[in-house]
Amino acid sequence: MTCDFLSLALPGVQQLSPYVPGKPVDELARELGLPVADIVKLASNENPLGPSPAALDAIQAALPELTRYPDGNGFKLKQALSAHYRVGTDMLVLGNGSNDILELVARAFVSPRDEVLFSAHAFAVYPLVTQAIGARPVVVPAREWGHDLTAMADAITPATKLIFIANPNNPTGTWVERDELDAFLARVPEQVLVVLDEAYTEYVTDADFPDGLDYLRKYPNVLVSRTFSKAYGLAALRIGFAVCQPVIADVLNRVRQPFNANSLALAAATAALSDREYLEVSRTVNQQGMAQMEAGLRHLGLSWIPSRGNFIAVDLGREAGPVYQALLHAGVIVRPVAGYGMPQHLRVSIGLAEENQRFLLALEQVLAGE
Amino acid sequence: MTCDFLSLALPGVQQLSPYVPGKPVDELARELGLPVADIVKLASNENPLGPSPAALDAIQAALPELTRYPDGNGFKLKQALSAHYRVGTDMLVLGNGSNDILELVARAFVSPRDEVLFSAHAFAVYPLVTQAIGARPVVVPAREWGHDLTAMADAITPATKLIFIANPNNPTGTWVERDELDAFLARVPEQVLVVLDEAYTEYVTDADFPDGLDYLRKYPNVLVSRTFSKAYGLAALRIGFAVCQPVIADVLNRVRQPFNANSLALAAATAALSDREYLEVSRTVNQQGMAQMEAGLRHLGLSWIPSRGNFIAVDLGREAGPVYQALLHAGVIVRPVAGYGMPQHLRVSIGLAEENQRFLLALEQVLAGE
Repeated sequence: MTCDFLSLALPGVQQLSPYVPGKPVDELARELGLPVADIVKLASNENPLGPSPAALDAIQAALPELTRYPDGNGFKLKQALSAHYRVGTDMLVLGNGSNDILELVARAFVSPRDEVLFSAHAFAVYPLVTQAIGARPVVVPAREWGHDLTAMADAITPATKLIFIANPNNPTGTWVERDELDAFLARVPEQVLVVLDEAYTEYVTDADFPDGLDYLRKYPNVLVSRTFSKAYGLAALRIGFAVCQPVIADVLNRVRQPFNANSLALAAATAALSDREYLEVSRTVNQQGMAQMEAGLRHLGLSWIPSRGNFIAVDLGREAGPVYQALLHAGVIVRPVAGYGMPQHLRVSIGLAEENQRFLLALEQVLAGE
Repeated sequence: MTCDFLSLALPGVQQLSPYVPGKPVDELARELGLPVADIVKLASNENPLGPSPAALDAIQAALPELTRYPDGNGFKLKQALSAHYRVGTDMLVLGNGSNDILELVARAFVSPRDEVLFSAHAFAVYPLVTQAIGARPVVVPAREWGHDLTAMADAITPATKLIFIANPNNPTGTWVERDELDAFLARVPEQVLVVLDEAYTEYVTDADFPDGLDYLRKYPNVLVSRTFSKAYGLAALRIGFAVCQPVIADVLNRVRQPFNANSLALAAATAALSDREYLEVSRTVNQQGMAQMEAGLRHLGLSWIPSRGNFIAVDLGREAGPVYQALLHAGVIVRPVAGYGMPQHLRVSIGLAEENQRFLLALEQVLAGE
């Protein structure tokens, strides 16, 4: 080959480092020759309950139509979302996971001349989508690992086109409260889009926690992103959505792939939305698991970042990479977050009680054995 | 709202008209109050056989892992594709349908200064992805509705970055033969990427028909796009793939969403690839259906564009829109193609014998009744 195809790619694309996902159970099983059943994965903030029976039933009912294209307009899911969240169907955009939503907003509105603002230690997809389009990422330093909304508002310039706010944030679990968000949004110019990425919002029940949907009327530049991958337990299927003003939804619907959401995802999400029992149990298991995890970490003399997500960032007070590797050899997959500027932390998803216990015991042994 | 958010979108995006999919059966049933079972859909070039049992089994086996993220590297499907097509796993990129592949190539390599070349009457996604990134579409006039590869080679300029060739082409069913493609590729400069979109290739068994994979070694600027949506019968799940040089695959894998292919699609596609019987029956049903369709059209005194796909573009010799509407009212959904510069044609997918017959009878009645 004489031609350097990498140099033919767009400049931002040439510099991209791919997203590093949590290690799949199968992959670790292959690498270490361990039985799959002996591995605990607390690495991707997945719902540990297993699938909602209602979602499974909906998938079974949709299987005879496997050879047919999905409904590109997502009629039934949009009807269900519209009724559930009391928003117009013209305010909805469906995505192949909420990752798709985050990318669509950037691709539709941000040019290489623009700035995209987000916090340090925020979700990795924000810098990735910014870089892919060659725009300028503006990373605002965090305050106690969380979004510093005052500093973020101060960082807005005439070139700012888009701001990502993750609430709660992944991988830190930090959150912004209602009064902070109120004050921030009041300072954002109306032509600057603000994405409130609420992937973990279903886990939060605290009274001071804002619901992004409450801001849509007052701030037409706000877009709320949600997912079925977390509390709704459908990560495998890839389905998320945006709620925003119809004119923004219309733009995003022009840019998205016509069949970006698959049929089984559409059917399962529609069913999951009305399975309130699954959601309640998910919350309860998460609250109990978080308490268990905090007690276990306290017992080990470790500190952590307070979290309102279904995960917790543990401060090891030392380089976390070797501990991550040792845990892998013990059959426990967690998530290293050095790529997020957190080289001494490990992010651990809240699992079932026995999974949390398995992690805590393995961590105790790893820390003691060195 | 005081701010015009449409004007904030990128210039190409502002001009985008969304892709118009084939009308879903459910949608027509809602609109006309017809029972779903009375409707025949020959509008989206779907496999009329219903799902492959092997694919269904694979989905059932994958359901317990619904709460887990997909394997972002698609290990098992890539292993299966690698063995099946005798290409390295580092030459593979998985997509959320091959639509995802077509878009990824454009987004990774094409800037607003570049030209993207494709034929008149070619697949609608080529102009859409070109416009979304603000690049210049160069539409080369067709020859007898098919790609004029000589004219396309003549149209290459120093600004040409990407060429799309659909073989067979949708919606015309036309194809390019091996010697034409040989001569064309010899004329394309090595820094110009050529996407051979072979979504329908599994239906073609003619000896003069080229296999894009045969060109990868000689022409490192060639990328072959394939899908599981047609002959493999998995349109609902959204899974396609690219085969290309590792350096190009690496670039595309950086740009794609980390979990662009969902778990059930990965599992079903892996299984479908080894279900040779399903593929054989799909081909046979299509060949028999095509013969039935041609005989029926001949009987009606109509002409059509010779097709090697699983569909046929019928020339009505008059404006096709009213005929399309009348067929809808008879419960038969076909595809109007005025948007492809073919206002007198209707594209009709090849269905099961009784579906083809239903279409032919309805068309006869519609044409006689006016």
